[in-house]
Amino acid sequence: MKNINEWHHIFKLDPAKEISDEHLDQICESGTDAIIVGGTDNVTIDGVLDLLSRIRRSHMVPVVLEVSEEETLTPGFDYYFVPMVLNSKEKKYMMDIQHKAIKEFIDMMEFAEVYFEGYCILNEDAKAFQYTNCVMPDLDDVKAYAYMAEKVFHLPFFYVEYSGTYGDPTLVKEVKEELQNTQLLYGGGIETSTQAKEMKKYADTIIVGNSIYTNIKEALKTVEAVKGN
Amino acid sequence: MKNINEWHHIFKLDPAKEISDEHLDQICESGTDAIIVGGTDNVTIDGVLDLLSRIRRSHMVPVVLEVSEEETLTPGFDYYFVPMVLNSKEKKYMMDIQHKAIKEFIDMMEFAEVYFEGYCILNEDAKAFQYTNCVMPDLDDVKAYAYMAEKVFHLPFFYVEYSGTYGDPTLVKEVKEELQNTQLLYGGGIETSTQAKEMKKYADTIIVGNSIYTNIKEALKTVEAVKGN
Repeated sequence: MKNINEWHHIFKLDPAKEISDEHLDQICESGTDAIIVGGTDNVTIDGVLDLLSRIRRSHMVPVVLEVSEEETLTPGFDYYFVPMVLNSKEKKYMMDIQHKAIKEFIDMMEFAEVYFEGYCILNEDAKAFQYTNCVMPDLDDVKAYAYMAEKVFHLPFFYVEYSGTYGDPTLVKEVKEELQNTQLLYGGGIETSTQAKEMKKYADTIIVGNSIYTNIKEALKTVEAVKGN
Repeated sequence: MKNINEWHHIFKLDPAKEISDEHLDQICESGTDAIIVGGTDNVTIDGVLDLLSRIRRSHMVPVVLEVSEEETLTPGFDYYFVPMVLNSKEKKYMMDIQHKAIKEFIDMMEFAEVYFEGYCILNEDAKAFQYTNCVMPDLDDVKAYAYMAEKVFHLPFFYVEYSGTYGDPTLVKEVKEELQNTQLLYGGGIETSTQAKEMKKYADTIIVGNSIYTNIKEALKTVEAVKGN
């Protein structure tokens, strides 16, 4: 199995959205490095477990749970990614809900593969932006968040999230220049091979989500597009 | 010069308080591993520079600036410690003022020895507690903060701060058991050799502050008390 820092492409599945078995099989066998299960709205434990069991039934691809609500936490995933929203106005979304969960699960933490993600959400219209009460950062703010993610907090991931809209490749490029060790994840609005290639030039890993549900043919092509790199 | 992780004893001088040359000499030549310059109230750049120059004039002891206000930031110190108050209710004191400072000084950061401290303030009556709008954590909260300081944020220091009052050695002991790599600093109310010895049993480093100004003879004895350990 590849190390996480060798992951170039990830598909993100939203447990609140419907996906057919055929499409799910195509996603799992696409050659992507991993599947993240996660969403913002209407995520239920049933939805999470349904996706997990359908993936596990016939596929070997690593499966990650991105933990947003404690209620949807369940064993059985290969990895757990915990978002910490660096540009939220509230400490709650940066570290307090995480602190509360750690307090509760501290004795089990060593038995799970848990990774903390330094999130920076850059789309003001996104639900995740509004839900976590974010402030819109300028380029220097984002670079300073990246600096903190790597040099202050030594987080494994810095996640530039445009959530549903295609972002600014120049910003991603400049952020990448701040990072040596922390892995740069890019997510948001990737619908074509060209976009996948463009963002993968700068980000270590690209994450493709929405287009799975809107244009699966194009979504599947993003895997091949970044594997040549 | 000793590595910071070999520091057992530190004196903390408050730039807002008067100290005679005689007492300052005694502190600097006491055998303590370092002097931290820092305080909460009425800290001015003049006060900081005055202390720094008086120490540098005739002593070799390492001098640290604990940065609380950007206005009192000045070159010339051996190290810069930046507090991040983990149990503040406000993200501001946990990471936003630090983010703002990093944004401004990002190009100079690599030239300074900067260390970030995960603070946990445990005295509700302390000015620092009130100023940074803290919430009083219980033991499990403190242990989860320690866990985050080490395992999530990989901070070099976790600072248990009772600020002016002598703390609970049992708590310090239990916190120490959570930590393998992050250095445990204890500060608060150490006025005697016995107290110094007791807290040093659990904390990696003890910090003696107020008693410099109230009973310097006893304060000086705390150095010898922990050096035997």
